Amino acid sequence: MVLKLYYDLLSQPSRSLYILLKLSKIPFEQCLVSLAKGEQLTKEFAETKSIFQKIPFIHDGDFRLNESVAIVRYLSRQYTLDDKWYPKESKKQAKADEFLEWNHSNVRLNCSTYFIVKWRNPLISGKQPSEDRIKSLTKYMEKSLTDFENIFLTNGPYILGDNLSYVDIHAACEIEQTRVAGYDARNYSPKIKNWIEHVRSECNPVYDEAHKFINKLASMHGEENKSKL
Amino acid sequence: MVLKLYYDLLSQPSRSLYILLKLSKIPFEQCLVSLAKGEQLTKEFAETKSIFQKIPFIHDGDFRLNESVAIVRYLSRQYTLDDKWYPKESKKQAKADEFLEWNHSNVRLNCSTYFIVKWRNPLISGKQPSEDRIKSLTKYMEKSLTDFENIFLTNGPYILGDNLSYVDIHAACEIEQTRVAGYDARNYSPKIKNWIEHVRSECNPVYDEAHKFINKLASMHGEENKSKL
Repeated sequence: MVLKLYYDLLSQPSRSLYILLKLSKIPFEQCLVSLAKGEQLTKEFAETKSIFQKIPFIHDGDFRLNESVAIVRYLSRQYTLDDKWYPKESKKQAKADEFLEWNHSNVRLNCSTYFIVKWRNPLISGKQPSEDRIKSLTKYMEKSLTDFENIFLTNGPYILGDNLSYVDIHAACEIEQTRVAGYDARNYSPKIKNWIEHVRSECNPVYDEAHKFINKLASMHGEENKSKL
Repeated sequence: MVLKLYYDLLSQPSRSLYILLKLSKIPFEQCLVSLAKGEQLTKEFAETKSIFQKIPFIHDGDFRLNESVAIVRYLSRQYTLDDKWYPKESKKQAKADEFLEWNHSNVRLNCSTYFIVKWRNPLISGKQPSEDRIKSLTKYMEKSLTDFENIFLTNGPYILGDNLSYVDIHAACEIEQTRVAGYDARNYSPKIKNWIEHVRSECNPVYDEAHKFINKLASMHGEENKSKL
């Protein structure tokens, strides 16, 4: 039975899993879940697909698993996931895990909060956040980006050193998201710009394919939002 | 060279690692870092101890590692950590990881934000948060506690089913923290009360030893805060 990935390319961890599965050539069935239509919010979805009512998740036969980081670790044990994507060597794996855990309360929390408050919530409510709120969220986000640069982009062109791994894809997909809300981290940090362009180039054409919708939204809303900065 | 754990028992993941190391009888050197004194914030600390400037972390010889979840996974590979604390079987390990990842943006985020805004910030600034802010934070926290109960406390007395694991200790230490700010999740949910008392009882006397300071603060501030609820 083929692995099923439930995802929407508007979601950061959905994109990172989609890119990983494509690049590692693990066969999978693409099961789209539309966040815009709220398809994940029904009772039937909770019962038949995922009680978490969030994406991404997988069905591997009868086994259901949520949370992108847990899924990548599972794939590394159950499937032929090359060591370069998620290292088997214990200390290198620990360093991959260290970033993936740190990320939750830092880059992910602060970039996704910025995206939600500045772009998603106004789209739903029609109300814009105050300038003070955006200023404060930008401060937190830039602190996380600075920490990311100072702690994790010091061992080589990639987070784990000389080679691209899933960890870079996971981080890049998160950082790309704020472009939809008019903030491009490439303009904040030349080091992040250089790193993210390396990640994109190594993952292409899959990276651009996964970011097609994000790029379209960024081009629609980016210009409009720039004037508010 | 003996494993060094840098910690402060005021910190939730510090307590969970301390309890795990004690119960699993892995020898370790106790390296206290006082959060109250801000010992982790100096430049010297960043250079000689941890660039993250957060606790807990370990030094295992020359190898430095932050992030409690990454540390537990590392210990399970490098040390004689019994399978019952962090499962080796692939699907069971995936379920442990699923909770540990989900927790970051749910129970941990919402319980620790409540603790910080209601207790820690006023201690530093002398200013109390507004009632509306506390009401809103309580709502988010209780949503996470309800999700925790409905998603993770359904397979038996413990998160992974019939047996206690590190995952329970990790969650319990997080949920205990809000008692310092006058909120006891035991009063919100009988199921959580039952589960947390099982965890405490199975881990004692180490659990109470690790929570000695938290219990003292809860008894000092709890009564005072109850009147504000």
